Amino acid sequence: MSDSLKVALLGCGTVGGAVLRLLTEQSDDLAARIGRRVEVAGVAVRRPDHHPEVPAELLTTDAHGLVTRPDVDLVVEVIGGIEPARSLLLAAIGAGKSVVSANKALLAEDGVALHAAAGQAGVDLYYEAAVAGAIPLLRPLRESLAGDQLRRVVGIVNGTTNYILSRMAETGAGFGEALAEATELGYAEADPTADVDGFDAAAKAAILASLAFHTPVTAADVYREGISAVSATDVARAAEIGCTVKLLAICERVAGADGADDGVAVRVHPAMIPTTHPLASVGGAFNAVFVEAEAAGELMFYGRGAGGEPTASAVLGDLVAVARNRVSGAAGPGTTGYAGLTVRSMADTPTRYHVSLDVADKPGVLATVAHEFAAHGVSIATVRQDGHGEAATLVIVTHRAPDAALSATVARLREMDAVRAVTSVLRVEGLA
Amino acid sequence: MSDSLKVALLGCGTVGGAVLRLLTEQSDDLAARIGRRVEVAGVAVRRPDHHPEVPAELLTTDAHGLVTRPDVDLVVEVIGGIEPARSLLLAAIGAGKSVVSANKALLAEDGVALHAAAGQAGVDLYYEAAVAGAIPLLRPLRESLAGDQLRRVVGIVNGTTNYILSRMAETGAGFGEALAEATELGYAEADPTADVDGFDAAAKAAILASLAFHTPVTAADVYREGISAVSATDVARAAEIGCTVKLLAICERVAGADGADDGVAVRVHPAMIPTTHPLASVGGAFNAVFVEAEAAGELMFYGRGAGGEPTASAVLGDLVAVARNRVSGAAGPGTTGYAGLTVRSMADTPTRYHVSLDVADKPGVLATVAHEFAAHGVSIATVRQDGHGEAATLVIVTHRAPDAALSATVARLREMDAVRAVTSVLRVEGLA
Repeated sequence: MSDSLKVALLGCGTVGGAVLRLLTEQSDDLAARIGRRVEVAGVAVRRPDHHPEVPAELLTTDAHGLVTRPDVDLVVEVIGGIEPARSLLLAAIGAGKSVVSANKALLAEDGVALHAAAGQAGVDLYYEAAVAGAIPLLRPLRESLAGDQLRRVVGIVNGTTNYILSRMAETGAGFGEALAEATELGYAEADPTADVDGFDAAAKAAILASLAFHTPVTAADVYREGISAVSATDVARAAEIGCTVKLLAICERVAGADGADDGVAVRVHPAMIPTTHPLASVGGAFNAVFVEAEAAGELMFYGRGAGGEPTASAVLGDLVAVARNRVSGAAGPGTTGYAGLTVRSMADTPTRYHVSLDVADKPGVLATVAHEFAAHGVSIATVRQDGHGEAATLVIVTHRAPDAALSATVARLREMDAVRAVTSVLRVEGLA
Repeated sequence: MSDSLKVALLGCGTVGGAVLRLLTEQSDDLAARIGRRVEVAGVAVRRPDHHPEVPAELLTTDAHGLVTRPDVDLVVEVIGGIEPARSLLLAAIGAGKSVVSANKALLAEDGVALHAAAGQAGVDLYYEAAVAGAIPLLRPLRESLAGDQLRRVVGIVNGTTNYILSRMAETGAGFGEALAEATELGYAEADPTADVDGFDAAAKAAILASLAFHTPVTAADVYREGISAVSATDVARAAEIGCTVKLLAICERVAGADGADDGVAVRVHPAMIPTTHPLASVGGAFNAVFVEAEAAGELMFYGRGAGGEPTASAVLGDLVAVARNRVSGAAGPGTTGYAGLTVRSMADTPTRYHVSLDVADKPGVLATVAHEFAAHGVSIATVRQDGHGEAATLVIVTHRAPDAALSATVARLREMDAVRAVTSVLRVEGLA
């Protein structure tokens, strides 16, 4: 066997530590699978004294020096965040190194530039671990489904919010209480904003949409609503109509208002989905992604979306792939943005709403409410009215309509005299 | 864009027809994704007059001539069966063509020789469509999980038997009745042997085990039981203990009787699995494969396991991959058999049994039965005894023990005076 392939590791936290351990433990297996031994050339960290488990001669604070070292072949980046990760990866690519990254924020913001740089340098840029942790998902989208036309990708891609919503459903707790529990158990970070407000899921949605539709999509293109406004009432209302509430990342082909079939919509928001939908039973910290393709039909991928070991598994899978490419002297498939589809605004995106209202229980109220939907061009799929004395509850599920028409309808309902309160508004996905 | 890549298609039945149609419909997309146009050079069929939908100038009965034509770059084989598929693929590989096949029987019998030939010729041999139809599964095993250690692969990989078992559970029908319904609806072939007796699943299990464990496994190495002996009683008993009956293909690492951790067991048989297991809700003609890996943890892949379009999606995904490799002048990763693990016999494989008995309801019977298990070194996990007058029902679920010990125990129970009848024996999988 010829010379080892030398790997530079950027970052040595939970994921980096697991990568380093697995690289050592599986050294012989990796060599057999790649055809060359893999050797760690160095580990860049901010504070070398915090890493007693790493051989001292490997540790360095000079990340830039490490990724441009002539003997380094491959760079693994598990620092996260935009800078210095971006500069380091561009430097590595510029120096002819293939790169494996787990950095969703960076890929969602600057994937096009990074891919362009990698393409120009003839090196690989792989990032399976950036979306849905251990679940093989990006490779299937980039490669297995490369001969098919994707219609939709719908995923539960954030374990923290999924845990919180699962607990709300199980216990009837409100968002605040469930978040406090998740924080205490370590499922939510001290500052949960990135998860709870949907930033993490939006970055992943951008990456998924870019690969699924061969169209550059950045995190800024993604419509985003988090789960902090989801109430115990929303969760209870969902159960009443045979649904459960999930935070979904949805990437789909949509026709524009002009009927042109050249658009995509990419969005992250909580939604009610039927309990019979394969995604409904994905609980706790698990992730799952449901894919609809023209020829393949419906597919689902399920597994652990986070954690040191699962994420390290995805990183090492990529490392084997780029190492094999290095050995065979080729680069793997890059990304393609050839389709250049239009990213539609949320206002133009067709969605369905569930709306629960407290109304006065007197003649004409349903007609007035129904008229408001019709006036906005929104067709009603189901209505349930429960009278209880002077007041009544109206539960309405609409057909698909442009999101702007639906939100305008709800805004008008809130102003109507006959409507005492709009008690729950949530989008509905996955209904036939 | 330079010259087209030329594809020879072998076979033009349901799958081949779908491949041909998608190649035409998606011609521009495929060109953008590959970087070269793909053109059909010819379609080899037995009876050209049966294919009015194919341009006459493409049709040929000379398959060997087609696959060795100098202008052909890639060969897609969707004939199925061992011969002439094997000779044709070897001829194609020998002539320097990369090959995409959907042929599970051939890959399960002769994968090692085909891979060796492809490796020697420096061409690709891809066969995603051979296992679980449209579900991206072989690429994730070969590539995404290449940095991990697989412990188990458990799949529902045959839609016909899954449909039959689903219907038995839903309607209480026996096997014969459910098979007749499946045949009438076109879910079962006129000769259902390959599906019902587990041959189809065993071929897929061999392919999965080979990739998962880097060890050559052929269909002949796979222990195989079909579903024709599954009775309505078995299905009812499963429901009583919170389980459902599925035909499973199971590939797993097992330690030998000597404790050496260098073995694999590969088997296909019906089994009870808990209704809470992710595989339990996979109904009808769907396939799903559950994977357990050291670092990644639990993963599941779900989708359509058969049908022209889904299978064609997998074929085209492979076609794009081998075409990209051709454009970049490289070959993708081959298979590796470096691990060379020992394939254990079924007798040595640890399994768990469910056993239901009709016994005389008198003192000492449970003790006698329990003694028989203990005498064979089998530990009992749960017992339920229901008396009804003179007779009683005993339902026993064991812990794991070598399959030989379990089957020997059951054989002895059948001979015991106190046991009036052994009413149901099925293995149990997926219990904690």
